[in-house]
Amino acid sequence: MYGLIGQLRTTEEGRAAVVAALVEGARGMPGNVAYLVAEDAEDPASVWVTEVWESEAAHRASLDLPSVRDAIARARPHLTGRGTRVVTRPVASLDG
Amino acid sequence: MYGLIGQLRTTEEGRAAVVAALVEGARGMPGNVAYLVAEDAEDPASVWVTEVWESEAAHRASLDLPSVRDAIARARPHLTGRGTRVVTRPVASLDG
Repeated sequence: MYGLIGQLRTTEEGRAAVVAALVEGARGMPGNVAYLVAEDAEDPASVWVTEVWESEAAHRASLDLPSVRDAIARARPHLTGRGTRVVTRPVASLDG
Repeated sequence: MYGLIGQLRTTEEGRAAVVAALVEGARGMPGNVAYLVAEDAEDPASVWVTEVWESEAAHRASLDLPSVRDAIARARPHLTGRGTRVVTRPVASLDG
């Protein structure tokens, strides 16, 4: 499996739009196992995404999906940069 | 909802034991929505955990569960410190 944990830096006023774009764009992506979007509770200009994919190839292919391209285009005006970005090897995904 | 994204620093040889302890200790925790454990693909001495909880109180209560206490005790000899630790407000958890 292939995973990512990424921090997106946003404008404060644009964070909600970035979150909405990410959530809407992430539905039904082939090979995606989990996609968690969260606001940073202490930094109002930061969003965190934890992703789990069946493979790195599945993740790469997702970047060509129209839904994902649209989401990136919608989010871009509100993005100010990237923070932490970690490639991971997911081991377990427990649902409570 | 309440969330955490945390990086645990481990010894290289002890990382597998930490991962095993985390996964086993995290089963059936009341109020837990998601618990994702992943190895850092580039740093052999690092583990990342993404957590989603119904509330901060649910997370705090979990630290008193025997299963969690046991897991922490099993992991502790292999831990060398904490890295990134972010409190989040989870927005969406999509299962592919």
